[in-house]
Amino acid sequence: MMGAVRNRNGKPAMSQGLQIDADRLWRSIMEMARIAATEKGGNRRLALTDDDREGRDLFVSWCGDAGMTCTVDKMGNIFARRPGRDPDAGPVSTGSHLDTQPTGGKFDGVYGVLAGLEVVRTLNDAGVETGAPLEVICWTNEEGARFSPAMIGSAVFAGAFGLDYAHGRTDAEGKTLGGELARIGYLGPEEPGGHALGHHFEAHIEQGPILEAEGKPVGVVTGVQGVRWYDIGIRGMEAHAGPTPMEARKDAVVAAAELIRRLDDNALDEGPHGRTTVKIARCAPEGSRNTIAGEVALTVDIRHPDRDAFDRLDAGLRRAAAETAELRKVGIGVDEIWVSPPVVFDAGCVDAVRRAAALLGYGHMDMVSGAGHDSVYVSRVAPTAMIFVPCEGGVSHNEIENAARDDLEAGCNVLLHAMLDRAGAPG
Amino acid sequence: MMGAVRNRNGKPAMSQGLQIDADRLWRSIMEMARIAATEKGGNRRLALTDDDREGRDLFVSWCGDAGMTCTVDKMGNIFARRPGRDPDAGPVSTGSHLDTQPTGGKFDGVYGVLAGLEVVRTLNDAGVETGAPLEVICWTNEEGARFSPAMIGSAVFAGAFGLDYAHGRTDAEGKTLGGELARIGYLGPEEPGGHALGHHFEAHIEQGPILEAEGKPVGVVTGVQGVRWYDIGIRGMEAHAGPTPMEARKDAVVAAAELIRRLDDNALDEGPHGRTTVKIARCAPEGSRNTIAGEVALTVDIRHPDRDAFDRLDAGLRRAAAETAELRKVGIGVDEIWVSPPVVFDAGCVDAVRRAAALLGYGHMDMVSGAGHDSVYVSRVAPTAMIFVPCEGGVSHNEIENAARDDLEAGCNVLLHAMLDRAGAPG
Repeated sequence: MMGAVRNRNGKPAMSQGLQIDADRLWRSIMEMARIAATEKGGNRRLALTDDDREGRDLFVSWCGDAGMTCTVDKMGNIFARRPGRDPDAGPVSTGSHLDTQPTGGKFDGVYGVLAGLEVVRTLNDAGVETGAPLEVICWTNEEGARFSPAMIGSAVFAGAFGLDYAHGRTDAEGKTLGGELARIGYLGPEEPGGHALGHHFEAHIEQGPILEAEGKPVGVVTGVQGVRWYDIGIRGMEAHAGPTPMEARKDAVVAAAELIRRLDDNALDEGPHGRTTVKIARCAPEGSRNTIAGEVALTVDIRHPDRDAFDRLDAGLRRAAAETAELRKVGIGVDEIWVSPPVVFDAGCVDAVRRAAALLGYGHMDMVSGAGHDSVYVSRVAPTAMIFVPCEGGVSHNEIENAARDDLEAGCNVLLHAMLDRAGAPG
Repeated sequence: MMGAVRNRNGKPAMSQGLQIDADRLWRSIMEMARIAATEKGGNRRLALTDDDREGRDLFVSWCGDAGMTCTVDKMGNIFARRPGRDPDAGPVSTGSHLDTQPTGGKFDGVYGVLAGLEVVRTLNDAGVETGAPLEVICWTNEEGARFSPAMIGSAVFAGAFGLDYAHGRTDAEGKTLGGELARIGYLGPEEPGGHALGHHFEAHIEQGPILEAEGKPVGVVTGVQGVRWYDIGIRGMEAHAGPTPMEARKDAVVAAAELIRRLDDNALDEGPHGRTTVKIARCAPEGSRNTIAGEVALTVDIRHPDRDAFDRLDAGLRRAAAETAELRKVGIGVDEIWVSPPVVFDAGCVDAVRRAAALLGYGHMDMVSGAGHDSVYVSRVAPTAMIFVPCEGGVSHNEIENAARDDLEAGCNVLLHAMLDRAGAPG
């Protein structure tokens, strides 16, 4: 490690004794959740809306109160910096996102941003100075709900997509990401990726049921499942629901049902880690229940942590589409629109998380993330790891998403100590 | 029969020699098809839109040119009347509808209205006077595409629904049927059903493949399949597409696929006359491909000409819904929103159609309609039958819907002679 952490009067800090303020963290999360709250207790804070601006403004004001300096890059990513003793050291960063799903929860993303803020507030209160600077980051449009693809802010930061491509992405109304960034005042001056990160951590709710089932408050995330997104178009034949014999139909809905069943089977065959999720984006002609569907559009999301199984799921999807087209006499087009290969996180950062959990006496286990996160992209340009905490029933992307105060505290304490581990002073 | 038809100078008409003008009929259909034409050669003339008004205005102007008097009832149904010798005789009526599906064709409905007009034009040219008056009717909102349920104009005429109910029906934007009738100037003064019909005929494209396959230009329609419409709501559980194991999901899309497959099987089990058509009306949350569907809404249309089989399809649907809910751990609500039982047409009117086809030497066959038609409701209040003509490939409710000029001619000639058969003078 880089050496002991010192407090600002130069004495070694009893860093393993440092604890975050769990009530303050909880209050901050609840205050953020008041912005774009939904009736069912969740949030609808879509990226780059006025609601997102309000959330960002609140975060920036809190960072200012905590003595941090914020910079914004051309992707709207916000970097709140707390200086260290060594201004030339790569910052130890943490963060996540403040945008939500259309019917999202209070914790997904928000926890990771505000846990970072809580780490800084805790160090401020204790008068602890680190060797490397610290940064708390809010990434733009992680969810991919308003603008596709997901995690585009961290992706551009890591060089996975170009800025022009990202700025040109459009929402359902045709508004561009770049235009909306400018509109809400978060089109910053810094070139994305313009400053290097030394090490990166991200705290997040698990969004799955494993930690809860195992009774462990901390997941040491060693990597992330690969994810592929497809748009699938099924072209049948519109015809009248009454006179057209069943055998003569080219029904796009029946074909979709056949394909969905096969894709579900494919994921089960790659159990327990395989995942397939299908959504129906369009069924046409709309508004006519007595016309056989001529067109169905599906979106498909497949995931697996193992590269070979991940590729088998892709091949299986293409085979299922071809077989369904043949069987149901329809045309099926498969368009892969995004892929994020399986990721293995940095061993040093993963060790720092595991050691912090052990040091603090929290039950913990290694696990692979089933969800994509900004850290997938950040891991391309900086040593990275993640910390998971349980969420109630494993449910997220849902307004009823919930997490326990004690678990959020545990994850934030692990984040604090993992960051201190990496940010120690040079001498 | 009521006696021989006479021409206006009192001599018996050689009525079996009368022939409609097929080119004039075709030109009228093509002229109507220019209103709200689609790029692919079809029509999008939704009920009570400005386009529908334009179509109605054209029809009314043609009726005026043909010496007919138009009245409109409070459902916007248009009755164009040609006087007979006996003003007290119940009119022999014919007609269909001018509204289309969202991506509809040029013939569905339109043919029946304009064939009626062509009958009158032919009688005018030949100077033939009938005993009973004739009426050509345009019914409101047959398709049910803009306002549900379908055939609501003829339904209210026949007393199946009240006027208030009908006027209060709303489209997807919340506009009411009554308001839209008034807006386009077709909220007439007459009480629906305010005048009795003596006999009724409706010419229509088959909207199925049978006549084409059998090589016969005329279908003698003896009755109509029963139709039931359902709204089905599937309630799953929103969750993140990545971390949520397949076994832990309550995926409304997968449940929908299961249900659709079972409903398809049910219809095949009631072959060859059973029909099930499912459309996907909603899949939520929208715009998030990485959230498992918490809700899917389906519309279902089931049909059968036999009452027992029709009821078995209903029971089978409810069983499939219950079994799918159990198997896929979701909630499924089944709401029957409309039912039209199987219909058997009037034997006298059916005979008149069959005799006319034989008299004219056209190949013909008895058949049951798979589609609902305004005549289903009209048959509740007047002796009724229908005449089918082939459509290309059996395709309708599609912009490529097509019919052969010679077949349209045959059907219109049969309509002419069936109407003359019922409209003969009292003596």
